[in-house]
Amino acid sequence: MADSTPESRTVTSADVARLAGVSRATVSFVLNDTKGARVSAATRERVLDAARRLGYVPHAAARSLRAGRSNLVLIPASVSAMGRLASEWIDDLHEALHRRGYVTVLHAGRFGDPAEAARAWAELRPVAVLALDGDRYTAPTADVLARAGVRAQLAFAARPVPGTYTIAFDHRDLGAAAVEHLIASGRTRIGVIMPKERGLAAFAEPRLAGAGEVAARHMATVVPVELAYAHEDAAALARRWAELGLDGVFAYNDEYAALLLHALRGQGIAVPGEVAVVGADDLVLAGLQDPPLTTVRIDMPSAEDIAARLEELVESGSAEPAPRIEVRLVRRGSA
Amino acid sequence: MADSTPESRTVTSADVARLAGVSRATVSFVLNDTKGARVSAATRERVLDAARRLGYVPHAAARSLRAGRSNLVLIPASVSAMGRLASEWIDDLHEALHRRGYVTVLHAGRFGDPAEAARAWAELRPVAVLALDGDRYTAPTADVLARAGVRAQLAFAARPVPGTYTIAFDHRDLGAAAVEHLIASGRTRIGVIMPKERGLAAFAEPRLAGAGEVAARHMATVVPVELAYAHEDAAALARRWAELGLDGVFAYNDEYAALLLHALRGQGIAVPGEVAVVGADDLVLAGLQDPPLTTVRIDMPSAEDIAARLEELVESGSAEPAPRIEVRLVRRGSA
Repeated sequence: MADSTPESRTVTSADVARLAGVSRATVSFVLNDTKGARVSAATRERVLDAARRLGYVPHAAARSLRAGRSNLVLIPASVSAMGRLASEWIDDLHEALHRRGYVTVLHAGRFGDPAEAARAWAELRPVAVLALDGDRYTAPTADVLARAGVRAQLAFAARPVPGTYTIAFDHRDLGAAAVEHLIASGRTRIGVIMPKERGLAAFAEPRLAGAGEVAARHMATVVPVELAYAHEDAAALARRWAELGLDGVFAYNDEYAALLLHALRGQGIAVPGEVAVVGADDLVLAGLQDPPLTTVRIDMPSAEDIAARLEELVESGSAEPAPRIEVRLVRRGSA
Repeated sequence: MADSTPESRTVTSADVARLAGVSRATVSFVLNDTKGARVSAATRERVLDAARRLGYVPHAAARSLRAGRSNLVLIPASVSAMGRLASEWIDDLHEALHRRGYVTVLHAGRFGDPAEAARAWAELRPVAVLALDGDRYTAPTADVLARAGVRAQLAFAARPVPGTYTIAFDHRDLGAAAVEHLIASGRTRIGVIMPKERGLAAFAEPRLAGAGEVAARHMATVVPVELAYAHEDAAALARRWAELGLDGVFAYNDEYAALLLHALRGQGIAVPGEVAVVGADDLVLAGLQDPPLTTVRIDMPSAEDIAARLEELVESGSAEPAPRIEVRLVRRGSA
């Protein structure tokens, strides 16, 4: 079947209407399955055939403008800050939402101002927003999104955010679990690695705070220690290690812990003999280290569970409260 | 200033028009900076003030429907398949595009059928699509997107795709570089790790093919070896290692290489003595292994460079051809 449309031209619903010999409204009724619109089976077939022949794809946004609802789920996220744990979880979530008819997009923007961020997300008119990094999610954020028609707002956050379905997850728990273990094993002067990489401060600051709160209840000290995820920086830190006088470290996550472990070994500093090291996330690589990394594991809810709650929120405006996300220490050789 | 809009209601341009005492068309003229529309400075100020007071955010898609152009750049990608190398690059690209007025979203869909994938991307009406995994990008994909008004299509792919600005990158080069090095150092029976993880076959298959092509030119054999990114699977593989009779391995990337290295050591198999191991990506963790990983490094173009080409494609429909992406072996201790 010859196709008369030049390759370079955008195909619109007007083209479909012309080829099918119907009005644009009829094309819209058929392609958007508009309820209550009366279109004969023959006309319907003619429209679908014309759309197929022209390669016409309905515009999700146009459809959402008419239907007052999109199927877009937006996840604000810096890709590099996510790490393997979160990235696999997001792929699972995408699949679970896809089965429910939603399209998931990651919005990679980094914004200094939360209101500016909310406006950028709102412009895409998602039906739902899921913030994994919900501690920067504020009531004004939720308000901007609600006014833009976002039906479901979910945030992993330490504290409930008004207007948002909050899944309780406190990064302070990670620092607290690590430092509790270090103190229980006799360490008193504990470093907390603060990554220099962009986007990670939002996670590192509360981890440091949690570490500090536990230390304050014991006769222990917590010292923030900056580290970039690079060999040279780790080697430089290891060279001035003695000056710091630390006997324990919570290393932000397993990747930074592995890097630090290697640099300390390079300086002949014994782990856990001279300094005990704790990571976080319980990644595969934690078990590959020498000694294997003691780490804090995050018991994430299943992606299926979160997808179901998100759907419930979109459809009914509310959902059962989600259980708090717990963390637990996995003890191996490094601490 | 009291705000009379109930929190729960979506704010539309009609609300702005009512509060400002103007027509919806005037609101649209002002908020979309429509060229040629005559609106007095006072009216303009009244509309902007009303929008601010109501917290109204213009709809990017509605604006793109009117303007015939969105500012959305879509990157199809499974998040977990990307790895650290690609994820940092994408964050850089996002920033470079943001400075140029574009919004970058990652579309996390996994599709068996390329045409179905293209239709899903087209529904969002992006102005540009950038496929890092361009080997599955076909002429029909490009055609669906062009008909949906996508102005710039870029793909990292081994072969030029009609209708698409192709940046030459052949995953076979990775397998070839690894196997050339292994053969030069006297290895003749070479395993190629094929990850069991979803989404990675598209990268693993051409790497295997490149390894096989080099082996075929020498008296060497290439054997595909499946491996899941998990301790148990690696340990099971190491236990039956002797049966395979391999003296060299190209381990897909540095993460799989580190996992395999650890499992082999657990079985008392000497690296590189009994088996030489080559990774890929030259991640930080490559240098942390014992012995440090020999790896194949990918010399990615800068994100700034790709952002500039993308902008050129959107604005003028063409751009200077991009140089081919080269790979090179980084020799360390494991091979």
